[in-house]
Amino acid sequence: MPVADDFEQATVTLPKPEPGAVQVRNQWMSVDPYMRGRMRDVKSYLPPFALGEVMQGGAVGTVMTSNDPRLKEGDTVVSMFGWREAFNAPADAPGLMKVDTTALAPEMYLGVAGLTGLTAYLGVQEVANVKQGDVVFISAAAGAVGSVACQIAKIQGATVIGSAGGAEKVEFVRSLGVDTVIDYKAEPDLTAALQRAAPQGISVYFDNVGGAHLEAALAVAKPFARFALCGMIDGANDSASAVHGLVSIVRKRLRLEGFITSDRFDQIPRFLGEMVPWIGSGKIKSAQTVDQGIEHAVDAFLKLFHGGNVGKMLVKL
Amino acid sequence: MPVADDFEQATVTLPKPEPGAVQVRNQWMSVDPYMRGRMRDVKSYLPPFALGEVMQGGAVGTVMTSNDPRLKEGDTVVSMFGWREAFNAPADAPGLMKVDTTALAPEMYLGVAGLTGLTAYLGVQEVANVKQGDVVFISAAAGAVGSVACQIAKIQGATVIGSAGGAEKVEFVRSLGVDTVIDYKAEPDLTAALQRAAPQGISVYFDNVGGAHLEAALAVAKPFARFALCGMIDGANDSASAVHGLVSIVRKRLRLEGFITSDRFDQIPRFLGEMVPWIGSGKIKSAQTVDQGIEHAVDAFLKLFHGGNVGKMLVKL
Repeated sequence: MPVADDFEQATVTLPKPEPGAVQVRNQWMSVDPYMRGRMRDVKSYLPPFALGEVMQGGAVGTVMTSNDPRLKEGDTVVSMFGWREAFNAPADAPGLMKVDTTALAPEMYLGVAGLTGLTAYLGVQEVANVKQGDVVFISAAAGAVGSVACQIAKIQGATVIGSAGGAEKVEFVRSLGVDTVIDYKAEPDLTAALQRAAPQGISVYFDNVGGAHLEAALAVAKPFARFALCGMIDGANDSASAVHGLVSIVRKRLRLEGFITSDRFDQIPRFLGEMVPWIGSGKIKSAQTVDQGIEHAVDAFLKLFHGGNVGKMLVKL
Repeated sequence: MPVADDFEQATVTLPKPEPGAVQVRNQWMSVDPYMRGRMRDVKSYLPPFALGEVMQGGAVGTVMTSNDPRLKEGDTVVSMFGWREAFNAPADAPGLMKVDTTALAPEMYLGVAGLTGLTAYLGVQEVANVKQGDVVFISAAAGAVGSVACQIAKIQGATVIGSAGGAEKVEFVRSLGVDTVIDYKAEPDLTAALQRAAPQGISVYFDNVGGAHLEAALAVAKPFARFALCGMIDGANDSASAVHGLVSIVRKRLRLEGFITSDRFDQIPRFLGEMVPWIGSGKIKSAQTVDQGIEHAVDAFLKLFHGGNVGKMLVKL
């Protein structure tokens, strides 16, 4: 588990941007569970963070100076330069993209219309292919990805069971229109609770945590259930955690599929084409937990692993 | 783990078959790992065995008396009436089928051309969809299913790594043309051994045992590797066994899919259409471990869980 001492805040002077570059002042920055995976010195789907370098990740900000005709002063841009109040970058840097703020507030592009919304969309629509009649179990249902996944599954006509920890989160998940909410912190036996919520079993599991939730889903799965796995926060911090009951994969002919959003950026146009109207019509609601100031970025990040956030965790700069 | 005391041998008098029925004298009977699953009083893909009833399972025998024109005396038939020297059954009973013994020996229909061969075929061809260039890891490679899976994967042009326990089994697997054989009983670290055998990682894992083999496969998998899971003998006897490292499913975007042969009997014609020529041309070799006499059926069955068989475990009556 990361601790505050693993991080250092540094103040540096930003030079003027070079020709072809822009200077951006960030308004919002994102902290995400996947960042934990990059704090480990092993090869993975993204390279590890380097000691002494800036934490990378999503941010949205305003162009203050532009030395390139493709971006104008005052444009709102998303970027992947991470935990900074401001940065210089070439106007065509990877991940730097102007966004339309007439329909959506800028911070939406870090949440429901950003990578977390895309992750939910891919898991529900592509990997699990949720249809009317499905009984869908979603862990971390009050989280950034889970809360969107719940709503997309409802739009598809599924029965949705969400799991969240504590009364406030349970209430939030209920407000999203989820059929049954399990307060896993109040349940002595998560499998029994899921069994009560889905007496006929679940046909889809959207996993954001692994561990006991995955075990419960294996135990309560119907034959041929599909599991979309994208999070496993439990496993991210404890490589010793083990899962029982995998024999259900064979007995029930389950399909478990891991996915990573950055593999599927080609789906972004399709995603925004559905998501922006869903947000506009109120079918998808979003929630944020917002901490103020870059000096609280570490606290905000650590909240992700202690259940301290409802919806998308953001830092306002 | 089952023990001999869980079984009882009974001698009964068989009446003459009724009109429309046949009397069959079994020559060979099959003992299979899946029978362990049916010795548990829980709902599963097949109903549990009932106490005091005969163990069901595959057998091949000769029609001694026929009261139905569809079967003649002397016909060789496969059946699912299990651990009996003889039985009466309606000529159209489910699973009772005349087989052609001109091209294949009768016992082949309990092994390489029977359910075990079909299981290997489905896992390699359908679930994992093995292609040229794949690096395929197969556990229990000296077993009935694994030994056939190895050979089918080689026919597809894959590089094949098999795991087996002890020098005799390793030698047998090597004789099948497998590229690398791991003696898991001689390896202190199965994951390290698999890493050495597949320095670039495996793209397919055919699981027959679960447990440490599954953990090794998760650790050494390439991104987007496909896992076909059909056995999990480890999990069948010990519901407390747990698997570490599932976070690899997400990090490497793995697909794990359980399958059960009885779901896919519609594939039998396609299977026999490929398998019978492969056997005839020597591309698929088969091996059996044979115990003699129904009084040794229990011992033969228990050998499956103690690594006592090479290839298909049969009882000759």
